[in-house]
Amino acid sequence: MSKKEKTFRPKARTPRGFRDRFGPEIAAEREMLERISAVYESFGFDPLETPAFEYTDALGKFLPDIDRPNQGVFSLQDDDEQWMSLRYDLTAPLARYVAEHYDALAKPFRRYAVGPVWRNEKPGPGRFRQFTQCDADTVGAPAPNADAEMCMMFGEALNAAIGAMDSSPYRATSGPTPKAKIRVSTRKIVDGLFETISLAGENDLATRTAVMRSMDKFDRLGEGGVRLLLGPGRKDESGDFTAGARLADRDIDLVIAFLNSSGDEVSGDPAGSLERAAQIVGASSAGEIGLKELHGIKNAIPDFDARGIHFDCAIIRGLEYYTGPVFEAEIGSQFGSLGSVGGGGRYDGLVERFKGVEVPAVGVSIGISRLLAAFEFATDPLRMAQGPVVILALEDGQMAAYQTMAAELRAAGIRAEVYVGGSGMKAQMKYADKRGSPVAVICGGDERARGEVTIKDLRLGAELSKSIEDNAEWREAQPAQISVPREKLVEETRRVLARRQTAKSRGQT
Amino acid sequence: MSKKEKTFRPKARTPRGFRDRFGPEIAAEREMLERISAVYESFGFDPLETPAFEYTDALGKFLPDIDRPNQGVFSLQDDDEQWMSLRYDLTAPLARYVAEHYDALAKPFRRYAVGPVWRNEKPGPGRFRQFTQCDADTVGAPAPNADAEMCMMFGEALNAAIGAMDSSPYRATSGPTPKAKIRVSTRKIVDGLFETISLAGENDLATRTAVMRSMDKFDRLGEGGVRLLLGPGRKDESGDFTAGARLADRDIDLVIAFLNSSGDEVSGDPAGSLERAAQIVGASSAGEIGLKELHGIKNAIPDFDARGIHFDCAIIRGLEYYTGPVFEAEIGSQFGSLGSVGGGGRYDGLVERFKGVEVPAVGVSIGISRLLAAFEFATDPLRMAQGPVVILALEDGQMAAYQTMAAELRAAGIRAEVYVGGSGMKAQMKYADKRGSPVAVICGGDERARGEVTIKDLRLGAELSKSIEDNAEWREAQPAQISVPREKLVEETRRVLARRQTAKSRGQT
Repeated sequence: MSKKEKTFRPKARTPRGFRDRFGPEIAAEREMLERISAVYESFGFDPLETPAFEYTDALGKFLPDIDRPNQGVFSLQDDDEQWMSLRYDLTAPLARYVAEHYDALAKPFRRYAVGPVWRNEKPGPGRFRQFTQCDADTVGAPAPNADAEMCMMFGEALNAAIGAMDSSPYRATSGPTPKAKIRVSTRKIVDGLFETISLAGENDLATRTAVMRSMDKFDRLGEGGVRLLLGPGRKDESGDFTAGARLADRDIDLVIAFLNSSGDEVSGDPAGSLERAAQIVGASSAGEIGLKELHGIKNAIPDFDARGIHFDCAIIRGLEYYTGPVFEAEIGSQFGSLGSVGGGGRYDGLVERFKGVEVPAVGVSIGISRLLAAFEFATDPLRMAQGPVVILALEDGQMAAYQTMAAELRAAGIRAEVYVGGSGMKAQMKYADKRGSPVAVICGGDERARGEVTIKDLRLGAELSKSIEDNAEWREAQPAQISVPREKLVEETRRVLARRQTAKSRGQT
Repeated sequence: MSKKEKTFRPKARTPRGFRDRFGPEIAAEREMLERISAVYESFGFDPLETPAFEYTDALGKFLPDIDRPNQGVFSLQDDDEQWMSLRYDLTAPLARYVAEHYDALAKPFRRYAVGPVWRNEKPGPGRFRQFTQCDADTVGAPAPNADAEMCMMFGEALNAAIGAMDSSPYRATSGPTPKAKIRVSTRKIVDGLFETISLAGENDLATRTAVMRSMDKFDRLGEGGVRLLLGPGRKDESGDFTAGARLADRDIDLVIAFLNSSGDEVSGDPAGSLERAAQIVGASSAGEIGLKELHGIKNAIPDFDARGIHFDCAIIRGLEYYTGPVFEAEIGSQFGSLGSVGGGGRYDGLVERFKGVEVPAVGVSIGISRLLAAFEFATDPLRMAQGPVVILALEDGQMAAYQTMAAELRAAGIRAEVYVGGSGMKAQMKYADKRGSPVAVICGGDERARGEVTIKDLRLGAELSKSIEDNAEWREAQPAQISVPREKLVEETRRVLARRQTAKSRGQT
């Protein structure tokens, strides 16, 4: 190392918009992904892993007029001058894979994929430039049967993921496990609406876009605001004016009636959405096709209602991207308003850029970070539950004996480690505390001479001081540390750990 | 989409040096990583996930004299002009993480990490620019106790990974499960050798490097070749001449004796390596420290020999990077010469670049792709074993009924899917075949009218035709398809699948 390098001290920090994750969050995500993957596999989907990089032109973000590929993706030029980009989703690599191996694949081709994607965007609070996606897609199958299956599988996968919360020590909230709800619509229904209000022409694209954007604001602005946006235009709180789509009053009424077709979940009858939408768009040719698609989906799903699937024809988000049915998933109330935890739909243009022909495809994507947010990581107490048993290293010549103790505990399914730092007993106890260890095992010269080990319950003091009720008796029966014959190490450690579990379920943790 | 874009058809291909992976290989890797992670966690290590990007200066590849960071890593400039690079290993991000959170961490800090790393290198056969690493490190603990623990854990993790082969349907070879062997040495021993041959001075760096490079070729060139490299120089087969280190004959003898200290595993006594090396370097001060380290490691490991750990003081690879003990792992014979499947050691300079102080650290890294190579994926027959049961979609109005059949099979733990493509029966049977399905379930109008389903054993024909012995009787008892009452779907499918298992263990697959 040269002297010049030695004096340079880089600042240790993650790049802007990226983050580290440690321990419980990773464990929770892994558990969720395993459960989701198991559902996908049980439905006959196989895992596909594509590399982080794709050629920029294959990624579909290629702009021929500038040297540097556009914003939104991370791109760099390879030695041979070709531009490569980090994938921004898992769908573009799927399109490339299918196009590359089209003839060899069994069709319908069913794959799922889990992995990081990268977005070269301005980072913000809770908005990262790398995050995990979890997708499943069926390529080469037309609507509605593949869509119906996708919709079922989506719900089952989400419910499996939510089920991870039940068994997780990190679960902060109690109460019954929530269920995923899947809302289903199709772009064709909205195309039917446009037909009905005479906006289906090629020259109406700009107006259609404006109308869809206005409709998408229904949740936020309510009927009044959307009426203004569909008509003369709207001035917002800051005084900014948004030009209106200038629809006729009768057409505005139809669009509003369409948006209201969702029904009110609280007062009931969300199931009537399809019938209400049918009254508005059923006479149009696109609307008819759309209604047929949705009925086809319903007919291909056993126990449709019991699965938490319902139609909501007023879904607008994603319709610009998808070409047929769309799905949106959310998770119920006691975890707070999580909003969407995933979505998907049919996109028959998937492979067209490569092959020049339409290949029907339908898929879903689960927002893992949204799901994880439901866990609401409590920091200290819950992390502590995961700490390993720490065997103090008090005599240097006894390391192998300590390691044997740790090995016995591990063989009994108990996480355990020997302290391998260079510090004395006090620092070792501090270490065990900081690690959230439930138990410290102490075997110094005295214990060894007696053929004993001391098991120290590290959580007991904290628990007792937290407890309000007078439990002096229980307290006396639970000494914070106990010496037992060496051969009882595993048995006694297990007993102390079990006691902690009991204290926990008594609400004392 | 503009017309210009429409006419542009990108070629579908992975970027140079990157590859896709599908199905069984991913499943095998996942199983291995889960087993390895479970061992790491049982030892008290927690998972850490850092982002793909690090600031280039933090990554330690920063060259102050040129604008563009050097080759070897993939780098790009962020909007704010800062250079970022994709991580090329999992150690540099660990150093950054520890430096960033140093005061808050419980020390020793124990973490493991699994994930892709990227190398901007010339790709070659079997040499990819993205691959998976799996590391464990202990930061903040001096030798030898942390090293001893690391060494034990390394062996246990590898044996757990190898154990995955036993239960894998992809296992091509039979026979007893091989065991990982861990070879251990320390840089200090080689430092002691340099002391002994009077090459420990500051001005001898170039000669030391030349000697170490020569020593590293012992396996390939043998004693004769290395003698030439240590002495006058060597001309290779192509006529190229490599200058020699010009050591005195007596010193060359010592180096060769040192290299031979490994012992011969075939004729026995690899365990004597430490004693033989001690005779050569024991009198030097560095050698004395090194021997103490290695004895310290041995004393801190219970059942040292039974664990497949042995000393091999002639390990050279990695010594330039590590500052103390080094480990190398390999896997035994019946999987062929796999060579190294991982390595590690002590590198006390880890955090120094950031903090200006030495922080002791020791870690190991498992080469997952090398381990996976041991599986030797057989392509067709083994993949087929994983195919889902396919329920043919023969009547369009019966999709929900078909999905109910699939759901029943899945609930019984059997992978199952309904055909959702748009083709007829013949294409559906072809599909099931291509998917490697063991069983097709057929329920057309006739079966439905009788309240039956037909279970077709798709592998039976192939199996019987492969079988050489006369098993006409067995054949007759195993009809390739059978109709059973609808409610017997799961029971009968399970029976056919079990029969296939039996046939397989009879060697008929």
